[in-house]
Amino acid sequence: MNAPIVHGGGITAAAAIYGGEAEHWLDLSTGINPCPVPVPEIPMRAWHRLPDRHLIDQARAAAQSYYRSGDILPLPVPGTQSLIQLLPRLFDGGGKRVAILAPTYGEYERAFPMAGCCVELIAGLDDVRADHAVVVVVNPNNPDGRIYAPERLVALSEEMKARGAVVIVDEAFGDTCPEMSLVPLASRMPNVVISRSFGKFFGLAGLRLGFVVAALPIVERIEGLLGPWAVSGPALSIAADLLRSDIAPIQLRISERSGALRKVLDQGGLRIIGGTDLFALVDHKPAAQLHRHLCQHHILVRKFDYQPRWLRFGLTADAAGDQRLSDALQSYTS
Amino acid sequence: MNAPIVHGGGITAAAAIYGGEAEHWLDLSTGINPCPVPVPEIPMRAWHRLPDRHLIDQARAAAQSYYRSGDILPLPVPGTQSLIQLLPRLFDGGGKRVAILAPTYGEYERAFPMAGCCVELIAGLDDVRADHAVVVVVNPNNPDGRIYAPERLVALSEEMKARGAVVIVDEAFGDTCPEMSLVPLASRMPNVVISRSFGKFFGLAGLRLGFVVAALPIVERIEGLLGPWAVSGPALSIAADLLRSDIAPIQLRISERSGALRKVLDQGGLRIIGGTDLFALVDHKPAAQLHRHLCQHHILVRKFDYQPRWLRFGLTADAAGDQRLSDALQSYTS
Repeated sequence: MNAPIVHGGGITAAAAIYGGEAEHWLDLSTGINPCPVPVPEIPMRAWHRLPDRHLIDQARAAAQSYYRSGDILPLPVPGTQSLIQLLPRLFDGGGKRVAILAPTYGEYERAFPMAGCCVELIAGLDDVRADHAVVVVVNPNNPDGRIYAPERLVALSEEMKARGAVVIVDEAFGDTCPEMSLVPLASRMPNVVISRSFGKFFGLAGLRLGFVVAALPIVERIEGLLGPWAVSGPALSIAADLLRSDIAPIQLRISERSGALRKVLDQGGLRIIGGTDLFALVDHKPAAQLHRHLCQHHILVRKFDYQPRWLRFGLTADAAGDQRLSDALQSYTS
Repeated sequence: MNAPIVHGGGITAAAAIYGGEAEHWLDLSTGINPCPVPVPEIPMRAWHRLPDRHLIDQARAAAQSYYRSGDILPLPVPGTQSLIQLLPRLFDGGGKRVAILAPTYGEYERAFPMAGCCVELIAGLDDVRADHAVVVVVNPNNPDGRIYAPERLVALSEEMKARGAVVIVDEAFGDTCPEMSLVPLASRMPNVVISRSFGKFFGLAGLRLGFVVAALPIVERIEGLLGPWAVSGPALSIAADLLRSDIAPIQLRISERSGALRKVLDQGGLRIIGGTDLFALVDHKPAAQLHRHLCQHHILVRKFDYQPRWLRFGLTADAAGDQRLSDALQSYTS
């Protein structure tokens, strides 16, 4: 087994080192909307019964409309992480070469070797070669926010299709830039697998819900690997509700929070080099020192083993959070 | 891909054939407690955040006490079905022989061949042979309720251990007979994997939650295959609450409902040949005809492709359900 990856969300571990109650920490280590949408009413039968066809169909229809997937019905999965766990098994392992656009979310690099694939980290789409059976693109990318336009990914998928290769596009942070989504074009691309995260944008990451958009044969293989009732009834019920709701206020709030974060970082003298509406990436020479300083103020941000100059800041929930981060940055002298 | 298995819970499909609104059907096709325990309050952070160490630890500690697993911390999984999907991968496929005590829950027979194992259905523990690398025992068994005493399974595990083989014990229906559980003995058995279902007994099958009890190396492999955050925050929060609650009233209600069901079946002239407190198995020559008759009364029970004389009846929620089933049986003439 590979070494565990340091993920966002490790407040308990941080509090054990730096003190304080975990719930009093300011957790900026994730890319989750810090202002969760109120949980809609969940009918008792969604808790009680095995998730039935009707409930699944409702969630899929709502996702089809929300993600604009045309004639493809998105498949619900119990978190996009669960998809990453099984994606490699779609490709029969056997030493296949998988190119991952890096740096990016670390779980792809961990999951593919477990299924016998050879991972190669590449810096950009121009580095894709003819012997790559799979290319993974997180788009927009985590943590730097790099984004490829849909046309570029369509061109890639066509090249790849000609040699029987597959493109995986992870749009976990795609909700705040729907115009850049590849989903509306997916029905033309039989060799593309697109994943979407439900929890990040709606602020309900505890639900464990994502959707996959792909051609039917791929979706059916994923369904077979997941087995029946993979997604909880409450998650399906909530998705059916919220994916049909007016998301403009959610988007507005995220934009407002994103603006506030960037202002605080800027005023703190930090250099933002990328991000999405849900996080900002900072380049800072003594990043480890700043990370420690923030921990001492019980603020957790995300650092990166592979790039010691980077810190990723998630959104604060409100002006009080901005002030707390701002105060901590003001008291920092590198 | 194998053909899909007919599971309990197919009300939507049945209503499409026999009419009626799905929610007005009497669904006796599952083995789930029909009287769901009220859902405890779920803190907002369980919805909002990725399930963190603290929440997972709380659920595991509650499960350790409830299942009496000694020094083993049960591992939460997103439904025991998810475990069945990945169990075969613990054994490196490669044509290993897997003995499944049959007839039983059909998903084992489906999952193992997907991972390259050779499945052999055996009728009893005496049919286990030296070339079986894995034995699967559902205990108590679904649908006939056959049960092996813990001592018998300990003896089996010792035989199997001597030749590096593994025993999988599925205690999905074990909550109503805790004295027959192998869990309290698990810490002595490094080659045994025991699974427990949370949703059946508590009537919360929509949650997708189960627990695995096994030696640490096996638990760690399962964790690695599941990946991080496999179980939803609400499920963990509810488990931490309910597994510490007084379950005597739940058990009492199930016993009362079980007695009522058996009385109705008996008065309807049906022969009960097995079951557990959560379902009764009936042997009836023209079972297909009775199944159809009940469907015409919008009552769904479980039939079995492999045994056309059997029908499995789940519990009714209340006396009105008993009456409805009783009336349907009274109007039946085989």
